[in-house]
Amino acid sequence: MLGQKLAVRLARDGWQGGPAEVILHDIGFPTSGAPAARRIAGSLSDTGTAQQLAEMRADVIFHLAAIVSGEAEQAFELGWQVNMFATWNLLEALRLERAESDGLYCPRLVFSSSIAVFGAPFPDRIGDDFMTAPLTSYGAQKATCELIINDFSRKGIIDGVSIRLPTICVRPGRPNKAASGFFSDIIREPLNGRDAVLPVPDTVRHWHASPRSAVGFLVRAASLDLDRLEGRRSLNMPGLSCTVAEQIEALRDVAGAVAVARIEPEPDPAIMAIVSGWPCNFDTRRSNELGFVAETDFAQIIRAYLDDDLVPGGT
Amino acid sequence: MLGQKLAVRLARDGWQGGPAEVILHDIGFPTSGAPAARRIAGSLSDTGTAQQLAEMRADVIFHLAAIVSGEAEQAFELGWQVNMFATWNLLEALRLERAESDGLYCPRLVFSSSIAVFGAPFPDRIGDDFMTAPLTSYGAQKATCELIINDFSRKGIIDGVSIRLPTICVRPGRPNKAASGFFSDIIREPLNGRDAVLPVPDTVRHWHASPRSAVGFLVRAASLDLDRLEGRRSLNMPGLSCTVAEQIEALRDVAGAVAVARIEPEPDPAIMAIVSGWPCNFDTRRSNELGFVAETDFAQIIRAYLDDDLVPGGT
Repeated sequence: MLGQKLAVRLARDGWQGGPAEVILHDIGFPTSGAPAARRIAGSLSDTGTAQQLAEMRADVIFHLAAIVSGEAEQAFELGWQVNMFATWNLLEALRLERAESDGLYCPRLVFSSSIAVFGAPFPDRIGDDFMTAPLTSYGAQKATCELIINDFSRKGIIDGVSIRLPTICVRPGRPNKAASGFFSDIIREPLNGRDAVLPVPDTVRHWHASPRSAVGFLVRAASLDLDRLEGRRSLNMPGLSCTVAEQIEALRDVAGAVAVARIEPEPDPAIMAIVSGWPCNFDTRRSNELGFVAETDFAQIIRAYLDDDLVPGGT
Repeated sequence: MLGQKLAVRLARDGWQGGPAEVILHDIGFPTSGAPAARRIAGSLSDTGTAQQLAEMRADVIFHLAAIVSGEAEQAFELGWQVNMFATWNLLEALRLERAESDGLYCPRLVFSSSIAVFGAPFPDRIGDDFMTAPLTSYGAQKATCELIINDFSRKGIIDGVSIRLPTICVRPGRPNKAASGFFSDIIREPLNGRDAVLPVPDTVRHWHASPRSAVGFLVRAASLDLDRLEGRRSLNMPGLSCTVAEQIEALRDVAGAVAVARIEPEPDPAIMAIVSGWPCNFDTRRSNELGFVAETDFAQIIRAYLDDDLVPGGT
């Protein structure tokens, strides 16, 4: 989802003053709806695919691929293979591409990490030097990739940065297996005239940014002077800390009581257990100073969805 | 080295009130000098060897194997393969052993991690919730293994704990490729009538524990109730914070000026660069409360070497 939005934005805005040549890689592509761009289908678990991508010598690589949190929790081996080993395969292919040619190729690599690298208990606001103690396999896989990307960067093989995205909200499309999906469902489904399930109490506090902000983070990370990071290449992205009750009040302000009535509380202990281990507030002075910007109230996040993603009368 | 000392201690003291059956695994064994115990030779990079070890269903597994820091820095690919992927192979073999049999096998796994998981800049004393931002491949590999071990433990596949060892000093034997080797060399070599090279200024502060203490950490970690860790299974071990000058003064107290005169300053920018990124002081309240104990002055560390390792007239 973020990859598609990013490709559309790069095609529209170009890159560093010129047109952007965008190459998409995924395990497969929908027959319609994807942006017009060169496409490579294949799995990074296959070293041949990783090599094929490395040989293209992209200036910037956005590595967004992942099995989502709920699925990685259910499919332990698959989660590690896709979220960690496939990343290793890509980096190793880049290392070999560099070694086997002129030794000069060193692409910017922007890795979409996650606040799931953190696990409870937390300080009131998580700072940039707080430990990564993930409580999900997804978070552990992201944290592992960060360490590997940092070491490949330290060695000059890539120029990498890991940006720890807030929960992306409002996520377009339909409900998926991400344990965080309900944060979007309770806004998107009512705005589309459908019912939504709320599996946690409305006192749950969480850390959000819109897809529009997330694409902005990726673009900013692609052009940032990474020497400013002084070797600490994992960045907590800015976001909005708010409760589910505050989300619902913003929905009421934007779309009225009819929309709010579409939300059906249906407590799910498995989701609650996962969410209770997630962080809900950050001190992001470092990323703010580096020029990353997010929404400051939840109504802005809803309006970004209405502007960018709502298809009137559509699904 | 630690593995041999641990095996000797387990053979001597037994385990949980009875005799200990000790099985050693390594890529190879010396023809003499190793403790009497069953031996398995082979590489954990070979999944067959990992499976063979898993099928033995040990109650406790001490996983100490590693390429040392200096070598991992020089041999990038080899370091990751041995220090990270071989650990993965072992854990995966344990997972399959459990899955393919009664689903009950869940060994205690004690992993020797390192303070090299931390990288500068540091607070005055590093606490247990400080970020892992390693500045060497060795540190990155250890930090990665900690995350993987934590996730396998959270899933109930193993009951794992990672203990972050201080620099082990005085290390017996001869100089090796570890970048930290000189901390031992400047004590051991003079005590054996040989010259030693000091590649850093004597103002360098570092974090030490004797091999005897390190074996004590491993044994303590093997019997500890890990529920007390509340899911945070990486522990900074206690140690002694002192400068090279303080080490040298302790050597003077124990062995006199003749010994100190054996130390030859010979600055090495490569070693200084690595060491300057290492931590030198910790707040270890958590491991102290859990019953881990180390030396409190450097003369104790020298005396532990004299008691345990010095071979009068030997090498």
